[in-house]
Amino acid sequence: MGGVSTVDLAVAVSEAGGLGSLAMAGTDATGLRNVIETMKGQTPKPYNLNFFTHSMPTPDSGRDTTWLEKLRPLFEELEIPAPAELKAALEPFGNLHCAVIEELKPPIVSFHFGLPPANLVSRIKAAGTTIFSSATTVAEARWLEAHGADAVIAQGLEAGGHGGMFLNEDMAGQMGTLSLVPQVADAVKIPVIAAGGIADGRAIAAALMLGADAVQVGTSYLRCPEAGTNSIYRRALDEAEATIVTNMISGRPSRVMPNRLVKELGPISPDAPAFPKGFGPSGALRKASEANGSGDFSPLYCGQSVALGRSTQAAVLTRVLANETKRELRKIRISSIEHDCAW
Amino acid sequence: MGGVSTVDLAVAVSEAGGLGSLAMAGTDATGLRNVIETMKGQTPKPYNLNFFTHSMPTPDSGRDTTWLEKLRPLFEELEIPAPAELKAALEPFGNLHCAVIEELKPPIVSFHFGLPPANLVSRIKAAGTTIFSSATTVAEARWLEAHGADAVIAQGLEAGGHGGMFLNEDMAGQMGTLSLVPQVADAVKIPVIAAGGIADGRAIAAALMLGADAVQVGTSYLRCPEAGTNSIYRRALDEAEATIVTNMISGRPSRVMPNRLVKELGPISPDAPAFPKGFGPSGALRKASEANGSGDFSPLYCGQSVALGRSTQAAVLTRVLANETKRELRKIRISSIEHDCAW
Repeated sequence: MGGVSTVDLAVAVSEAGGLGSLAMAGTDATGLRNVIETMKGQTPKPYNLNFFTHSMPTPDSGRDTTWLEKLRPLFEELEIPAPAELKAALEPFGNLHCAVIEELKPPIVSFHFGLPPANLVSRIKAAGTTIFSSATTVAEARWLEAHGADAVIAQGLEAGGHGGMFLNEDMAGQMGTLSLVPQVADAVKIPVIAAGGIADGRAIAAALMLGADAVQVGTSYLRCPEAGTNSIYRRALDEAEATIVTNMISGRPSRVMPNRLVKELGPISPDAPAFPKGFGPSGALRKASEANGSGDFSPLYCGQSVALGRSTQAAVLTRVLANETKRELRKIRISSIEHDCAW
Repeated sequence: MGGVSTVDLAVAVSEAGGLGSLAMAGTDATGLRNVIETMKGQTPKPYNLNFFTHSMPTPDSGRDTTWLEKLRPLFEELEIPAPAELKAALEPFGNLHCAVIEELKPPIVSFHFGLPPANLVSRIKAAGTTIFSSATTVAEARWLEAHGADAVIAQGLEAGGHGGMFLNEDMAGQMGTLSLVPQVADAVKIPVIAAGGIADGRAIAAALMLGADAVQVGTSYLRCPEAGTNSIYRRALDEAEATIVTNMISGRPSRVMPNRLVKELGPISPDAPAFPKGFGPSGALRKASEANGSGDFSPLYCGQSVALGRSTQAAVLTRVLANETKRELRKIRISSIEHDCAW
């Protein structure tokens, strides 16, 4: 939830009994320090800080030039200068972030696209900070457990935003949450957090049945007043229909509501640059077009259950999700087991 | 489960309390009559007959020739003659099938790729036969309800074999079962049968939580002794790892364990012919290669939870699935609601 998670949102969720999370990808060590100190001042409850752990791409100016050429007509249409080259501006979690973690000891950090180098993992663990990371396959879940994760987020392809795959970037083998969660639960001893398509109590109850110990809910919080979701994004969420996986925005596959970039050049193109270089030009197009009130180039990340979302305060949503889950579990208890069950 | 479902399998499932199903795609009216009469003699329990309701493709000899040219080296390698042209040999459910339904009144028929023409739907309903059909989107579920289906099978993309999509053949928007089922349950009044990735009691309990009234289990029955699964297919199921969606086999997307055709020319190619013309050459390659004991060209249909399957008699599997489901539902009742629940 880069760009839309906020301290207010995370505090509200944690205070309501959930585990509030903050997207830290793109935040430097100073920014990280500020966030941890702010959170400390706002809630005694645990919260989570999420980082990207991608590898930086090898230079490939030919591919970059091809991509910039493809985008040129769009820059001309918006009357803004096209970038002269593509930069990998988004740094992964690194030594400087780790030093802040060691000093301020936040309760939980989570990683997307694997884990940081082993020495950083050791330092985080020595600080007493718990480590989560995302797996999209059974092999990734086993890898994370073997390399120090304290819990694994089993992310099905229903999930919005970037898929966390890191052992294999092929989308064709990606699994649905219903199939992934029980297979991950069988494969690892650490706790399993189900993610992808979880937007109401029915899906939370289902995830518990599948063997998950907890769930991760993203898209449903985008419409909370505490989220940093802008009005263009909120309007799109209200009208959401189908979602699609694209590499148009960053260079890696992410699930979005299709924008013009996705429709005209995607959804998937072999010409898209290596992650994270895509963010540069897609961000420039977005900025220019949003300045005109248009969502043509906005990265409208969301999951497949977006239509089940609600516009309500984060604390209310958190309690509603818990209560709905209880109700679903009780309903089955009464109707299927005690009375109607014919097995 | 075309080619692998059998009367023995369906009878065993129905007798054990499930709803046994028989794949009828490719069976003519005489074959259909034989199946219904055989089933009548073997069990008084309800069962289901599944038909395809695809549209026959318009001629496109250029595309067909391109595909045959692509396959030529494989025919040469196997030393068998390549077909001179592609035929659409698989007929959809039609008038002659419908006449047999009217006369013999089987309890349930299900359709894949939509529904037959309205006049045939009316005749089936007048015969007192119940109609199921598959939906892969909310829009398809609504369409099926509006056009006469008595129940909708919400088929998530975890499912093995052909996706039942019929309003839109684009795979990019396909939903996972966890996301699809509650949205379909909200959209229609008719019963919802969850399909895709359902292989054990955890997934059945989850599907019930999601709002399904029943579940459809396919892949898990492939390893039953009563199934017509050949030894090549069984060996592949025992070693199953990732599955993939391909249009190499029939021309339409289906989920399989990748074979040589999928790996070398696929998984998805715009050159693949229109459904069902792909079956001709892929079937010829399969026949020649299986005669040599090789699964190189076998259509290894299976869903994403194939690794959770078991080799056991169909009646035992049916009862085990029911008992596992009960156990999962009871476990949650006791542990989460009565004692541990901190909400």
